[in-house]
Amino acid sequence: MASRWPGLSEPKIERRLAASIVIMNSMRELFLLDPDIVFFNHGSFGATPRPVFESYQRWQRELERNPVKFIGRTQNGLLKQARATLGEYLGTDGENLVFVTNASFGINVVVRSMKLGPEDEVLTTDHEYGAVNNNWNYLADKLGFKYIIYPMPLPMTTQEAFVEEFWRGVTPRTKVISISHITSPTALIFPVQEICRRARAAGIITLIDGAHAPGQIPLNLDEIGADFYVGNLHKWLCAPKGAGFLHARLESQQLLEPLVVHGWHKTPDHPQSFVDIQQGQGTRDSAAFLAVPDAIAFQKEHNWDQVRADCHALAAQAQHRICEEFDLEPFSPVNANPQWWSQMLSMPLPNVADPRDFSRVVLEDYKIEIPMGAWRGPMQARISIQAYNTQEEVDLFVDVVTKYAKTHIPTA
Amino acid sequence: MASRWPGLSEPKIERRLAASIVIMNSMRELFLLDPDIVFFNHGSFGATPRPVFESYQRWQRELERNPVKFIGRTQNGLLKQARATLGEYLGTDGENLVFVTNASFGINVVVRSMKLGPEDEVLTTDHEYGAVNNNWNYLADKLGFKYIIYPMPLPMTTQEAFVEEFWRGVTPRTKVISISHITSPTALIFPVQEICRRARAAGIITLIDGAHAPGQIPLNLDEIGADFYVGNLHKWLCAPKGAGFLHARLESQQLLEPLVVHGWHKTPDHPQSFVDIQQGQGTRDSAAFLAVPDAIAFQKEHNWDQVRADCHALAAQAQHRICEEFDLEPFSPVNANPQWWSQMLSMPLPNVADPRDFSRVVLEDYKIEIPMGAWRGPMQARISIQAYNTQEEVDLFVDVVTKYAKTHIPTA
Repeated sequence: MASRWPGLSEPKIERRLAASIVIMNSMRELFLLDPDIVFFNHGSFGATPRPVFESYQRWQRELERNPVKFIGRTQNGLLKQARATLGEYLGTDGENLVFVTNASFGINVVVRSMKLGPEDEVLTTDHEYGAVNNNWNYLADKLGFKYIIYPMPLPMTTQEAFVEEFWRGVTPRTKVISISHITSPTALIFPVQEICRRARAAGIITLIDGAHAPGQIPLNLDEIGADFYVGNLHKWLCAPKGAGFLHARLESQQLLEPLVVHGWHKTPDHPQSFVDIQQGQGTRDSAAFLAVPDAIAFQKEHNWDQVRADCHALAAQAQHRICEEFDLEPFSPVNANPQWWSQMLSMPLPNVADPRDFSRVVLEDYKIEIPMGAWRGPMQARISIQAYNTQEEVDLFVDVVTKYAKTHIPTA
Repeated sequence: MASRWPGLSEPKIERRLAASIVIMNSMRELFLLDPDIVFFNHGSFGATPRPVFESYQRWQRELERNPVKFIGRTQNGLLKQARATLGEYLGTDGENLVFVTNASFGINVVVRSMKLGPEDEVLTTDHEYGAVNNNWNYLADKLGFKYIIYPMPLPMTTQEAFVEEFWRGVTPRTKVISISHITSPTALIFPVQEICRRARAAGIITLIDGAHAPGQIPLNLDEIGADFYVGNLHKWLCAPKGAGFLHARLESQQLLEPLVVHGWHKTPDHPQSFVDIQQGQGTRDSAAFLAVPDAIAFQKEHNWDQVRADCHALAAQAQHRICEEFDLEPFSPVNANPQWWSQMLSMPLPNVADPRDFSRVVLEDYKIEIPMGAWRGPMQARISIQAYNTQEEVDLFVDVVTKYAKTHIPTA
């Protein structure tokens, strides 16, 4: 590991890394992450604890003992149990849920089912995930409706102000509101329950992209009351990759069509349920879905409320130190209640002469995985703190940012 | 294991099973199948050899070492390599292929992309897989075209006669021909290359469902010349579950729209390729795709042409013995050249008083996994013979069928 800065000596970095390896043993060794990296990007794809991962691969071996028995005779019952467990965790009935590969798949199911025309509008914010925008743009091209991206400027203030401001984007033509629960570029928790309440009163369909929510914040889907809520389970719940869900409240289930037609059939002997229509997609590996109850159990067994609080505090500290040092303003008020963010935080970074070099140094010289880039103008970093991270890793990141920015000031 | 028949003593069955366990050691132990079952249903979901399965789970562990590096920076290159290897195996360029979870998914992509109206017809046979019919029926309901199921009676005679007969279903309204390469209920190899040739000359789009083809018969997709060809790799190529492909010939790629919109975007900086549009579907486990080259290598290393020939001979023998004993007519001519089937064979079964009891006895009392049922009137069995099966297992099945049918004759 090369040191490029006079102020941060190699021995100091080495000591910090050595200390971090000792202290993080308790949780880090429960994950399969490469011990040589600092992983501050749980938000992109998650990371899976060993016991959950082992359950996942055990289901795969179990399938191979008799694929016909497993896929043909056993699997649907196992999935029903797993949905029931997930439903209990998410505050809804398991029959209102289907497992999907990821939140994007669930978004696709909902978007493609919407019957919209040239007079209609879909309202969203400018903090949304690119693939969700792609979905709506794709369908808008076909059907001619308008996809309205309503800007929600930073910094945020209060949740009430957010709702009031966003609601100014609603018009008599608004048929669907499609927003994130926790945003991807800005890591902000949007007040979706109040927005869903207002939308329901106004006869507007709601689609909530909860890709980053399950496992990061407590969820009660029945209370949130969205028509459709999609989430990833491989991110903050730490399930294996390829585990997400699509939730539809009972009254809205009949609005959804199958994206992958397989179990759907034309002349059913009995009416097909939401699960019948959406779940059957042909032969696939369902092991990630079946390991979801293990992921829920893992977090319960490891006192996850405390883990979340500790992670939040570490992220807050990182932001505080960098913002203080460079006189930067956070994107949301510190100590707000409820908080605007949980374990994932987008924070402003100081200006540097060459942002790409900055990213490269952080990743290549210090092996810190963290998304850094410009979202709107100034550079920012989205730091994710998970159970396997440590104070020492945060110290290292803050030091690297501080020293680099102080020695690579923009010219002019 | 209970014996229910005076003519087949328990010791005889035990001797047979004991013998089979010895003889099948060489290939059976390379698979993860439960040693207590006779697995004659490779056709439904496949079975994976240990080295391929181990590669699969190794990729999953590799991903977990650094999910961001693997999914974000490494995976696309690995998938490109795997597509190149698969393309070489299938007689086409890897860039004309995308991995999909299964053949059904590929069928969905193609079916949903077809621009058809009330004046149009899609032509198929009555030997197709139910989910493919579901796909076309779903779209026909929306767009108003006709989905024409043309009956192809059994027994088959020659491939030339098949093509002539099927072509009688073509009308000036026929816009798409959608048929299996190897059928699911009847396990017949259809002469798709000649049908694709005629269709191309007539300006008709072809969609070939090759769910059962790769690994069971040699394939050269460029020579077949279908507009769209989908296949499973987890069946007869023995890749892990959830591995299939969608092939589109270069000239037809622009006809396909994304089913899962993720990588597709509205204002591309550069034109998007077939692979760009179809491959990116959000976070998922691509390990089954990445293990496909190992599955290809496994079959090459194990002299698969000979394995196929041996398996074919065993299945032929099973059919011959049952048809001789009960004076039944096979669904296709024996010793035809080219053969109408490869390792999977649908054969007629003798009439019995209670077909459900027959199936139950075969499965529960003798632990033989084989699909048995009525497709058109008389009962049939679809036997799949794979590298792990043995003469002794075939003997057991033939004996069980013979004894059962002779002691459970239909009344009246």
